[in-house]
Amino acid sequence: MTDVSIPNYDKNNMPKTTKSAVLEKVFDIDMKDTKLKEMGPTDVLIKVVAVGICGSDVHYYDQGHIGNFVVKKPLILGHESSGVIVAVGDKVTKFKRGDRVAMEPGVPCGHCEACRTGHYNLCPNMQFMATPPVNGDLTQFIVYPQDFVYPIPENVSYEEATLNEPLSVGVHATQKLGVDVGSSVLISGMGPIGLLAILAAKAHGADQIIVSDAEQSRLDVAKKLGATNAVNIKNADVLDTVKTLTNGVGVDYAIEASGTVPGEQTSLHALKRGGKVAYIGVPTTDQTPLDVPFMTDHETTIMGIFRYCNNYQTGLKILAKNTKLVDNLLTNFYPLDQTKAALEKSRTDKSNSIKVIIYPNEQLRK
Amino acid sequence: MTDVSIPNYDKNNMPKTTKSAVLEKVFDIDMKDTKLKEMGPTDVLIKVVAVGICGSDVHYYDQGHIGNFVVKKPLILGHESSGVIVAVGDKVTKFKRGDRVAMEPGVPCGHCEACRTGHYNLCPNMQFMATPPVNGDLTQFIVYPQDFVYPIPENVSYEEATLNEPLSVGVHATQKLGVDVGSSVLISGMGPIGLLAILAAKAHGADQIIVSDAEQSRLDVAKKLGATNAVNIKNADVLDTVKTLTNGVGVDYAIEASGTVPGEQTSLHALKRGGKVAYIGVPTTDQTPLDVPFMTDHETTIMGIFRYCNNYQTGLKILAKNTKLVDNLLTNFYPLDQTKAALEKSRTDKSNSIKVIIYPNEQLRK
Amino acid sequence: MTDVSIPNYDKNNMPKTTKSAVLEKVFDIDMKDTKLKEMGPTDVLIKVVAVGICGSDVHYYDQGHIGNFVVKKPLILGHESSGVIVAVGDKVTKFKRGDRVAMEPGVPCGHCEACRTGHYNLCPNMQFMATPPVNGDLTQFIVYPQDFVYPIPENVSYEEATLNEPLSVGVHATQKLGVDVGSSVLISGMGPIGLLAILAAKAHGADQIIVSDAEQSRLDVAKKLGATNAVNIKNADVLDTVKTLTNGVGVDYAIEASGTVPGEQTSLHALKRGGKVAYIGVPTTDQTPLDVPFMTDHETTIMGIFRYCNNYQTGLKILAKNTKLVDNLLTNFYPLDQTKAALEKSRTDKSNSIKVIIYPNEQLRK
Amino acid sequence: MTDVSIPNYDKNNMPKTTKSAVLEKVFDIDMKDTKLKEMGPTDVLIKVVAVGICGSDVHYYDQGHIGNFVVKKPLILGHESSGVIVAVGDKVTKFKRGDRVAMEPGVPCGHCEACRTGHYNLCPNMQFMATPPVNGDLTQFIVYPQDFVYPIPENVSYEEATLNEPLSVGVHATQKLGVDVGSSVLISGMGPIGLLAILAAKAHGADQIIVSDAEQSRLDVAKKLGATNAVNIKNADVLDTVKTLTNGVGVDYAIEASGTVPGEQTSLHALKRGGKVAYIGVPTTDQTPLDVPFMTDHETTIMGIFRYCNNYQTGLKILAKNTKLVDNLLTNFYPLDQTKAALEKSRTDKSNSIKVIIYPNEQLRK
Repeated sequence: MTDVSIPNYDKNNMPKTTKSAVLEKVFDIDMKDTKLKEMGPTDVLIKVVAVGICGSDVHYYDQGHIGNFVVKKPLILGHESSGVIVAVGDKVTKFKRGDRVAMEPGVPCGHCEACRTGHYNLCPNMQFMATPPVNGDLTQFIVYPQDFVYPIPENVSYEEATLNEPLSVGVHATQKLGVDVGSSVLISGMGPIGLLAILAAKAHGADQIIVSDAEQSRLDVAKKLGATNAVNIKNADVLDTVKTLTNGVGVDYAIEASGTVPGEQTSLHALKRGGKVAYIGVPTTDQTPLDVPFMTDHETTIMGIFRYCNNYQTGLKILAKNTKLVDNLLTNFYPLDQTKAALEKSRTDKSNSIKVIIYPNEQLRK
Repeated sequence: MTDVSIPNYDKNNMPKTTKSAVLEKVFDIDMKDTKLKEMGPTDVLIKVVAVGICGSDVHYYDQGHIGNFVVKKPLILGHESSGVIVAVGDKVTKFKRGDRVAMEPGVPCGHCEACRTGHYNLCPNMQFMATPPVNGDLTQFIVYPQDFVYPIPENVSYEEATLNEPLSVGVHATQKLGVDVGSSVLISGMGPIGLLAILAAKAHGADQIIVSDAEQSRLDVAKKLGATNAVNIKNADVLDTVKTLTNGVGVDYAIEASGTVPGEQTSLHALKRGGKVAYIGVPTTDQTPLDVPFMTDHETTIMGIFRYCNNYQTGLKILAKNTKLVDNLLTNFYPLDQTKAALEKSRTDKSNSIKVIIYPNEQLRK
Repeated sequence: MTDVSIPNYDKNNMPKTTKSAVLEKVFDIDMKDTKLKEMGPTDVLIKVVAVGICGSDVHYYDQGHIGNFVVKKPLILGHESSGVIVAVGDKVTKFKRGDRVAMEPGVPCGHCEACRTGHYNLCPNMQFMATPPVNGDLTQFIVYPQDFVYPIPENVSYEEATLNEPLSVGVHATQKLGVDVGSSVLISGMGPIGLLAILAAKAHGADQIIVSDAEQSRLDVAKKLGATNAVNIKNADVLDTVKTLTNGVGVDYAIEASGTVPGEQTSLHALKRGGKVAYIGVPTTDQTPLDVPFMTDHETTIMGIFRYCNNYQTGLKILAKNTKLVDNLLTNFYPLDQTKAALEKSRTDKSNSIKVIIYPNEQLRK
Repeated sequence: MTDVSIPNYDKNNMPKTTKSAVLEKVFDIDMKDTKLKEMGPTDVLIKVVAVGICGSDVHYYDQGHIGNFVVKKPLILGHESSGVIVAVGDKVTKFKRGDRVAMEPGVPCGHCEACRTGHYNLCPNMQFMATPPVNGDLTQFIVYPQDFVYPIPENVSYEEATLNEPLSVGVHATQKLGVDVGSSVLISGMGPIGLLAILAAKAHGADQIIVSDAEQSRLDVAKKLGATNAVNIKNADVLDTVKTLTNGVGVDYAIEASGTVPGEQTSLHALKRGGKVAYIGVPTTDQTPLDVPFMTDHETTIMGIFRYCNNYQTGLKILAKNTKLVDNLLTNFYPLDQTKAALEKSRTDKSNSIKVIIYPNEQLRK
C-alpha cells in the first residue's frame, strides 16, 4: 500500500487547528483552519488520508438540507473516510501510531434503549459526521473515539477503504433480509450503494444477482462486480426479466437503492411469495403508491434500512476479498482545496464518475 | 356444552348428498342437495354445527369476486366453522365419533417449497374453503382430512370455536411480528379480526394495547376484550394519542386490520424506530401512498400477512382462556335456510352485528 | 406502598460514608462505615431500602469464593435490591428525588463487542455487585449510574422489587428459549430462580408448567405461582411424569435451575424432538455426563444462561401482575446489623426460608 | 459429464426386479434380485449410477445395528446416491427421462407436526434408506417420489453428487448455527462430513476455518478444501491453537464431526462467550462429561444436529462451485458385485480411503 507521511504529534503535542473544506452556504465552499476537538483518554488523532464524496454531501452542497436536517451554520462535509493514526489517548488499547484505519462516521450515545439492545444505528442521540450540526472529515486531522475506528486489511488501499461506508449499508440490508446461500436477489439502482450491495449479496451466498439501472456504464461495472443479470430500464422491463429468470416465481430478496418511486414499486412486485425487500433508497416524496393487496396476498415484508450497525468490520473483510473489483468504482481524484470541483463533478457527471475521492493531505492518485 | 345429535353414519354407510346453501350468482342463494366428497382413509365425516359469516363471504355474495378470485359457477360459502365427528376413515388415528372439532379451512398440497419449509399458507396449490372454485361448508356434512381438524377445548362452545378462524389470523400476525412481554401494540380496525387480535396480543404479553375504529360500539367491545386505550377516529387523532401514550416514542408493534388507506398509513407512522407493523387489512386500491422516507429513517418493517399457518391449535388455547369475553362478538344467529338473511344482516348492519352465526343443522342459539 | 424517609442530601451535599455489612473473611461479617463513590453527572444517590440474600452471597460467606471469583479483601455483599432516589447528578433525566427504584446489579463497559451487539451480560469488563472485587449494596447508601436503575411499578413493594433480580434470570432464559403461547415447560429446581421462572414462563404463554424439587414446601409454593404439575423427586420420576403428561412426546422447553447433575440430565431427556433446555443452575462438577446420542437423534439444543440482559424492565412488569403471588417467596426479614443471622438463616434452613430480606435502613417488615 | 446408458423402460413397461447388494447378516453380502416398488403417479424410476459408502453402512455391515436400529431381516445398504431418470409417473412434472439426479434418502410423512412446521428431519414416521427396516439403493433401479429427487448441476459428476448427502449435514449444521460472513469456525473430525462441512462454512462466509483430526492425510485434504488452519491432535493442542488464533477469545462457532468424547469437549471449550457448537458426531457413550459451569458462564449453546432438512438443493449449489476440490474425497471405486470388498476397504483402510464409490450399473471410474 502507498505510504503516507505521519506528522510528529503525540497526545501531549497536539495540533490546535486543522485545514478544512467548509460549506459556508449553498454552493459556497471555503478552505479554513478549524478548531480540533480535545483528545480524551480513549480517543485517537487521525490524519485523514482519503474521503469519498457521498450523495448526501452533494445534497447539502446544492440544497442546504436533507429532510429535517438543515445546514444552519458552516459545516465540514465528508464522512466516507480513511486515515492513519498519528497519536493515541492514555487509555487507547486497540491502536498505535502508524495504523491504517477506516472511521465509522456515526458515534452513538451508548446509553439509550437502541444502544443497549444492539441497534445503535437507531440511537436518537447519534453524532453522525457531515449531518448538521455535526462536522464531517473533509479536513486534515480529526480526533475520534477508538471504538468507531477499524484497522484496514493489509491489501486494501486507503481509497478502497472509504468505500466501506456505502458498502456497510448494503451489508446491513443483506443481513437484515437474511440473504442466504443459493438465493436470488434483485438490486435496483446502481449508484455506489447499489453497486457495493452486489458484493454484500455475493458474500452472503446469493446465487442469482439481478440488477437494474438506466445508466449502461453502471450496469457494466455491476457485471464486473458479480451481477448475474443486468437490466437497463430504458430498454427492458425489470419485472418481466425477473419473472423469466425465476420461472415466474419471483426473487427471494430485493434491495432497493435507486430511491425512485418505480424502484420501490418494482422491487416489491419482483418478490416471490414470502419474499423480503430492503428499502435503502429514499424517494423525495412521502407518498409512494405501494400495492398492499400484493403485500398481503404474497405475505411479503418491506424493511426500511437506516445506515448500518455492527458491520463495519464485516464490510472491510468483504472489501479485502474484492480489492480489484472495487477499484472500478474509484473514478475521480482531487486535492482538498479542489473540494468544490470534486462536488461539482459528482453532482453533474454521473455518466463518467462513480465515486469521487478527495485527499485532505497528500494526493495519492490522479 | 350444548349437545348435538350425531346421525347414524359410518365409513361404510355414508350420506351421498348434503343440504347446502349455494351462491348461484350475485345476491342469489339457493338451498340444494350437493354431492358429498368420497371419504379417504385419513378423512373424517363431520356434521357441521356452526358457521360464522366472514367479510369475504359477503363480498362474494354481493360482488361475485375478490381480486382475481371470481365466482364462475355455483359456490357453497362459509369457512369459519365447527362441528362434530360422525365417522372416520380407516387410518384415522386422531379422532373418533362424537369428537367436537374446529376445521382449518385451507388444505395445502404438502409437496411444494412453501409446504416443506413450514409456510403452508403460501402454498400455490392451496384448497381453501369458499374461495372459488373450492366449496365452503355452509352445508350439513363435509368430508375433511383429519390433518386440518382440531379438537375443541371442553369449555369452548361450537359458536365460539368458529371465531378461531379470524383469531388465527391475528395470532399469525402477532407471532410474525414477535410481539413480546411488556410491549405496546396499536391495532387499527375493530372488525372481528381486529377485535380478536386484541386477545392474540394479550396472550403474547402486550402491555399496552391501543385500538382504533370509527364505530363506538366496536370500541366498547374492544375495551372488554382487553384494549387499554380505544380511539374513536371520528373524535380523536390516532397518531396524537399514540405519541401521548408512549411519551413521543411510538408503539413497538402495530396490526392493521381496517383495510383502509388511512389505517395502513397511520399504523406505519405510529411505530417507534425499529418498530414493525403487520398488514392484515386489504385496501381496495393497489396504490396506498406510503411514507418511504419515514420507513428508512425509522428502520421500520411492514409485514404483509396472509391467513395463518401452524397456529390453529394456539388459537383454540387462547379462546379457551377467554370464552366469556369472546361471547361479546357473537351477535346474530340463523338457521341454514335463512343464509340469505344472515348475509344481509352482516352486510348491512355493522352497528348491531359483529359476528353472524349460521347453524347448518339444529339451531342452538337465537 | 410503605413510605420511607428520605434524608436531606443533594448533589452538593453528599454523605461521605455509608454504614455497610462487610464480609471480612469467611463467616465474619462486620458493620463498618465505608466510603461512598463520588457522584458523576449521570449518577444517582440511592437510599437502599431492601436487599434479598442470594445463594451466591451465602457462598462467598461460607466458602470465600465461587469458581474463579475469590474474596481477597473485605467485600460488601448483596445485589438483589431496591431503594429510593435521594439525589441526582447534573445530567440525570430519568429520575428525581423520591422515586422508588430497583437497581440492576451489573454495569457493563458499553464499548466491547458484547455491549455493542446488545449482549452486555457477556461484557468481559462487567462490574457486578457483590462479585469480588466489586462491592454489593448491603449498605445504607449507594451512588449508581441512572442507566441501570428502574422505577418500581406503583403496586410493587420494595421487598417484592428485590425479587426482580432472580426473576430476570428466568425471563432471560425464557426469552432465549423462545417459550411461546401454548407451550409446555419443565422447570427443575424450586429455589427462588426456579420458582420465579414459573412466572416468566406463564407470562410468555406457557400452558403446561411442570416443576420438580425434593422439598415439598417449595413445590406447594410453585403450585400457587402457577405450576400445573409439581413432581417431588423423592417420590416420583420426573421423566415418567413428563412423558405421561405429554403423551410420550416430551416438553417443548426446559429450564434447569437446580444446579444438580440429575437436574441437568433429566431436563435434557425430558425434551421432545427439536426441544430446547436452558441451563441456569451450575453444578459443582465440570464433568456432567450428558447424553450426546440423545441430543443428536432428538436435535435438541442446550443453552447456557448467564444472568440477564435488557429484561430488568420486563421483569418488573411481570412482578406487577403477580404481586400477591410473589409474596409467598418473602419469608424472613432482618435489619442490616443482623446480616450474619440473615445469612445463617438462608444457609441452614431451606425448609422454612425461601427469600431472606435485609433492611439497610428502617425495617419495614418482621 | 460421463454419459450412461438409459434402458428402454417406461411407466407401462417397468422392470419387476432389480439386482441388489443385500446384507444378509453381519459380514454377509449377497447379490440378489429384489422386488421393485410399484410406481405411483408422482414417482420416478431411477437407474442408480453411483452410491457412496457411509460409516453407517459399514456399521450395519460389521455390527448389525446402530443404537436402537437393528438389522432383523435382509437389508439393502446405501443411501448416498445419484442416478438418471428412466421413466416418470403420470403426474410427474419436475423430471423427464434422461435427467441426472441426486436422491435425498429420507422421505418424511408430510402430516406430523414436524413436517408441517418445516422440520421434516424430525418426522417420527421418516422412511430413511438403509436404516432398518427400510432398504437403501445399492441396487440397479429404484422407484422414488419426485419430491425427494433433485437435478444435478451440469458441471457436477454422478460421483460428486453422492457427496451431497454428507455435505447436506454440514450445511444444515452451518445454517442452524447461523455461521455468518467473517466468522471463525472450528470443525473437529475430518471424516467426509467434517471435510465437507469446510465447504459449507466457507459458502456461508466463514473467514477462519480451523480443523482438527489425528490423520495427517485428512488434514492435508482439509487444507485443499479451504481450512485456514489444520491441527493434528497427535502433535498439538486444539484449544491452545484456537486461543492463539483468536487472541484468547475463542471461535464464534464449532462443528463437532468426530463423534469422540474429546471432540465434543474441546469443541465446546473452544467457543467464545455467546458461541455455539453443533454436535453432528455421535459418541458411543451416552455419558459424555460436559462442562456445565463453562456453558453457563460463557452462555454457550450446544445444538444437536440430525441429518438435514430443506437444504439438499443448497448442497448441490455448493458442490457446483467446488467440483475440483471435492474430487479429493473420491478415493476408491467398485462395481456392485464387489460391494463386500468396498465395505471392507471403507472399514479397514482409513488412511488411504476417504469416500468409496460403488457403481450399481456400469463402472465409470476405477
